[in-house]
Parts: sequence; C-alpha cells; structure tokens
Amino acid sequence: MYQKGLKDVVAVHTHIASVDGEIGELRYRGVKVDELVTTRTFEEVANFLWSGEQSKNEGNSLNKYRELPNHVNVIIDLLPKGVSLMDAMRTAISSYAHEDFKEKTIEEQAVILTAALPIIVARHYRNQQALPIVESRDDLSHTANYLWMLNGEVPSDVQVEALETYLKLTMEHGLNASTFAARVTISTESDLTSAVTSALGTMKGPLHGGAPSGVISLLNEMKDPSMIRTIIENKMENGEKIMGFGHRIYKTEDPRSILLREKCLSLQGKDPWLDIATIAEKEIIDLLAKHKPGRKLYTNVEYYAAAIMRSIDMPAELFTPTFSVARMVGWTAHAIEQTRDNTIFRPQSIYVGELK
Amino acid sequence: MYQKGLKDVVAVHTHIASVDGEIGELRYRGVKVDELVTTRTFEEVANFLWSGEQSKNEGNSLNKYRELPNHVNVIIDLLPKGVSLMDAMRTAISSYAHEDFKEKTIEEQAVILTAALPIIVARHYRNQQALPIVESRDDLSHTANYLWMLNGEVPSDVQVEALETYLKLTMEHGLNASTFAARVTISTESDLTSAVTSALGTMKGPLHGGAPSGVISLLNEMKDPSMIRTIIENKMENGEKIMGFGHRIYKTEDPRSILLREKCLSLQGKDPWLDIATIAEKEIIDLLAKHKPGRKLYTNVEYYAAAIMRSIDMPAELFTPTFSVARMVGWTAHAIEQTRDNTIFRPQSIYVGELK
Repeated sequence: MYQKGLKDVVAVHTHIASVDGEIGELRYRGVKVDELVTTRTFEEVANFLWSGEQSKNEGNSLNKYRELPNHVNVIIDLLPKGVSLMDAMRTAISSYAHEDFKEKTIEEQAVILTAALPIIVARHYRNQQALPIVESRDDLSHTANYLWMLNGEVPSDVQVEALETYLKLTMEHGLNASTFAARVTISTESDLTSAVTSALGTMKGPLHGGAPSGVISLLNEMKDPSMIRTIIENKMENGEKIMGFGHRIYKTEDPRSILLREKCLSLQGKDPWLDIATIAEKEIIDLLAKHKPGRKLYTNVEYYAAAIMRSIDMPAELFTPTFSVARMVGWTAHAIEQTRDNTIFRPQSIYVGELK
Repeated sequence: MYQKGLKDVVAVHTHIASVDGEIGELRYRGVKVDELVTTRTFEEVANFLWSGEQSKNEGNSLNKYRELPNHVNVIIDLLPKGVSLMDAMRTAISSYAHEDFKEKTIEEQAVILTAALPIIVARHYRNQQALPIVESRDDLSHTANYLWMLNGEVPSDVQVEALETYLKLTMEHGLNASTFAARVTISTESDLTSAVTSALGTMKGPLHGGAPSGVISLLNEMKDPSMIRTIIENKMENGEKIMGFGHRIYKTEDPRSILLREKCLSLQGKDPWLDIATIAEKEIIDLLAKHKPGRKLYTNVEYYAAAIMRSIDMPAELFTPTFSVARMVGWTAHAIEQTRDNTIFRPQSIYVGELK
C-alpha cells in the first residue's frame, strides 16, 4: 500500500497531544490548551508536556541552563554571517554532543536544549547584525530572557505576555514533518541531540515552519485601517491567496487563533499593530464570505501569530526560529516518548524504474 | 490504519535502487551491483547513482572538492575530543550552510558533501588521537585519499581495493531509517545540508549503522583458526547470537556478502584477517546448520565488511563513519529524487491518553 507523503497513515500512538479539527480542539496531555495557556507559564506548560505532571514549583527549571558550553558559543561566533538563523540553530544544537551533556538523562537533556535554543538564536542574530552579545539574566522568565537577549532591553509586560501566549500555543501540535523527523531519527536508538537536529533541519523548509512570513507582508501593507478593504479586494480580483486564513486540519476556528485574538483584544490600545490586526480580520472574513460564498474560511494561527510578532517588533527572519523555540518542547517530548516504547521506523520503497 | 514503525507501508516510489530479498538481488538504477562493482570505480558508481548516466570520464569529479571551507575546519578543531565521530560528522556537515555553498545546484552540493565527509572523519579522528592533520592529495582516488588522510601513509592497492569494494556495495540499499529521515527532512522544501544532517544523526543509532562492531569483536576472538570451532560452540551453548549471520530482508545469500567474499578470496594470502574470515565462515555455517537445523542462516554483509575493515586496520570506531562515507551517495541521491516530485511527509498520530 503506497501512500505518497504518508497521508492518512497513522505512524504514532501518542500521549502528548490531540488535535480535533472538526470541533476545533487542541489538547496537551488530555487538557485543553485554553485552560493551560491562561493559567500556566511557559515553564509550567513545558514541564507538563514533558512529564504529564502539573507542578507549579518546577516552573523555573529552564533558567539553570542559560550558559552555553564554551565550544558552542565559539562555533556560533565562527559561522559566516550569511548562514541563516535556522542553519545556525541546527549546527549549534548538533554540537551538544560533549561528554558532560551525554551523561545527563534524556529528560535533563530536553531541559538543557530547550533552555539553549533561544540563546543560540539571539547570539547568531546579534552576530549577524554586528551587535554586541547580551548576557542572559537568570531573574527573567524564559520568554522575557529571550526578548532581553535579542534586543538588549528588558521587554514590557505586554510584550512578554503576547509572545508567551504564542509560544505556549505552538509548543506542540501532534505529528507534523519536524516532529516526525525527530521520532524517525531517535528510533534507531540514536540520541536527543540528533533527533532535535533533524527536527530543526526539517522545520526550516518553507512548506513547514517557513510559511507565516506571508501574513507579515500582508499586515505590513495595512498601515492604515481605511486601506484594508481596497487592498484585500485588489488581491481577490488578482486571484492572490489571502495569507492567514484556512487550515488543512481545522474545519472550524483554530483554537489557537481564538486565544491569540483574545490576547490581542485584551491588549487593545496598547499596540497599534494588534489593533489593526483585529480590525483587518473582520473585514477580511466579510470579504471572503462575499467572494467565496459557501466556503467557510477561518483565521488560522499564523494570522494572529504574525500580528503578535509584528507588535513586539520581531523581524520576519526571527519568525520560524521563534516558532522553533516553542516547538522544541514538543520535539523533545515526542523523542522521549519514542524511546519509551520504541520500534525503528523502516517503511518500504518500491522500485519503479527499468531493470537493465 | 496504524503500522508501528511503518513496517510494510510503502512510503516511496524510487528509481534509485531495488532490493529483492527472495532471490538475493540488489540493483542500482536497474543494474545488478555485481556488474557495477567489478567494473566501476567509487566515483563512477556514485555518478551513476546520482544521475543514472554511466560515463567513465566524469569519474574524478570528487577530487575538485577536497578542501573544506575554513569555518568547517575550525569547527571540527573546536569540538571536544570526547565528541564521537558521528556527532562530529553531523555537526560539520550541518555547518555547510554558507552563501557560496547555497549558490550551487543540489547536484553539485551532493558532490561537495560526499567529497567532504571522509575528510571530516579523518580530521576529527586525528584530532582525537592528537595526531597532526594530513593534507588531502588530489592525485589519489576518493577511497585511497580517505585512507591516506586517516593514516598518513599511502595505502597499498590491496587495501584500497578491499575498502572500495565495500564502499561501492554499501552506497545504497533502498529505504532504511537514515535514507527515510533524509527524505522526510527535504520534503518540507528544506535543503540538502539539512537532509544529510538528519541522515547522519539517524545512522548513528545502534539499531542502524552501529550494529557491525559485534562481528569485529567475534573476529578479534579468532586469532587462531584452530580455536574457531570451540569459540562458536561455546557461544551457541550459552545462547549467544552469532553476529554476522542472518538478515531481515535477504532470505538467501546477501549479494553483497558474495562479492565481498570473492574479494577476500582473491586477496588470499595477502592478509591473515581475510584468511581467518573465510575459514571461520565455513565453520560457523556448518555449526549453525547442526545447531539450528531447518533454519537457513546465511552470512550477511556485516560479516565480510568487518573482515575487510579488520584487514585494513580500520579501528571499530571508524566502522559506522566509513559506512556513512559510502551511504552519503545514497542519501544525496534520494534527497535529490525527493525534490523532483515532492509531497511533504505528514503521517498522522492518534492520541491514546486520557481526556482530562
């Protein structure tokens, strides 16, 4: 039985996440994300995805590992500036293969690599911009420290809240190409470093982690709310796809969009980009309903993710790296799960060429 | 439909290789390996796997790229000595993401990465041993240059022939975990560097590339042919698996074992290890037939591969790296094929935990 792209093939039984596209529901370890995201920090949700345990006090485990090993720092500094952020992240994470690291349990390794990734992003980003490196701060949360190391300024509570909501909502989403790559890699009894390295190399492809920059371009065009209708109508007349609407799995509203929209609305008036995004969404949905009657198109997670990224001045090249900073939790949780009841992934190929 | 490990699921239609386990046949692009291996060099077989074209004159394309980019050399030199060869290879290959490299076509990138891998192995290996780096030599073949850079001595023709036969026979073997990982990674429209990085991280797992060191231990025990029978009988009485016999796919003799045995026999008298391996094989097959009547167990590729590795003084830690040096051709050929008619790999997962 040949299934190109393995569409509809069930490759994994998991305890980590469930996605129900029909009713628009995403659960982490059985709990609706709505509940987790509104009451828990990044650190707490990460611990819950890794262990299934909802303990408040372990919330700060990530700040123990904010110092990268020396060779990792030097490797990042050695990379030519033309190396993209995702390529730099893949190489720096791959270099976590030294003896100290290998002695840790896989659970501890997951914490170390998750703590490391935003620091790697910030270091290569600032090297690319020829800006001095900003040292990490143990008193800041994972999210706040990421923004601090990127920008060299302590972020506002509004910025941290907006970004953290996004990060918690995109940590995990069942099996996708990068998570699957992580599981295939570790299924040979390889290690967590290799699994996450594979995931990063897979995430960087535009069919996966690279898609949302289209929404940013769209929002960039809409500096003035009065222009929105004209811009969208022009796009529809030219047959252009309106980025940020419609999702392969969700046949109703993406639960992540609802939560991100709520976050945007709660911050109304505090940032013009969030305001424009909420106004534009209504206009676009209206116009899509007129233009494509009968076809229900909902706002997807990328739309509000882009609005939030834009509101915290996150440049487009940091979008996929930031998505990876979140998804690192899902990758490591899946890799650990794979090792618990492992079977090597070894599908078949069929030769369809000539015999000579 | 859930298929743990995707066993029996056909994930790929390919023009690169066919494996027929019933009749013991392996073909590269429709041509039996027997024919290719006895008449073509490593370079020629690699070109054939990449392009399907049997041109003799392009045989030397690999020696154009024997110089690693400066940042790659420095990254290798920076890695702590405790970093394993496979980990070093994964990190060094991942660092091929600079602008010069990205401008090349994917076909040229395949040649560059294949040329680079043995040089990376040799550099980290000699760093680990605190030996001075040996510069590459453009006048040597891919195989001879690998041995030269590892050992700092021009290898004998016997050594080059033995190793090259092994490398040509293990370049490609259809879909396996590492090749599959490469295809999953590039299926997001990621790039060749990412695909090969994923493959290396997957190959390093003991369920995949790490298995053959057991045969080396077995051969190491058999220094004297008169001891073979006793050693094997003892192992069988203790219920130990005899490494190097039996294969998941091949129900008859593995065609690669036949060719490697022939190579060993043709070199008879030139190396004591090859002699011991051929004598031991007969004894073991005899004893297995007595001990497990009715179950036909044949020598697999790992048995003679280990004999050949041992005869050219290749230490055990170089076994999987050397297998990777060969398989690099298959990985890159599959990654290129994936880009020609791509569908993203996105199988399903099913949540089997509780809802809370």
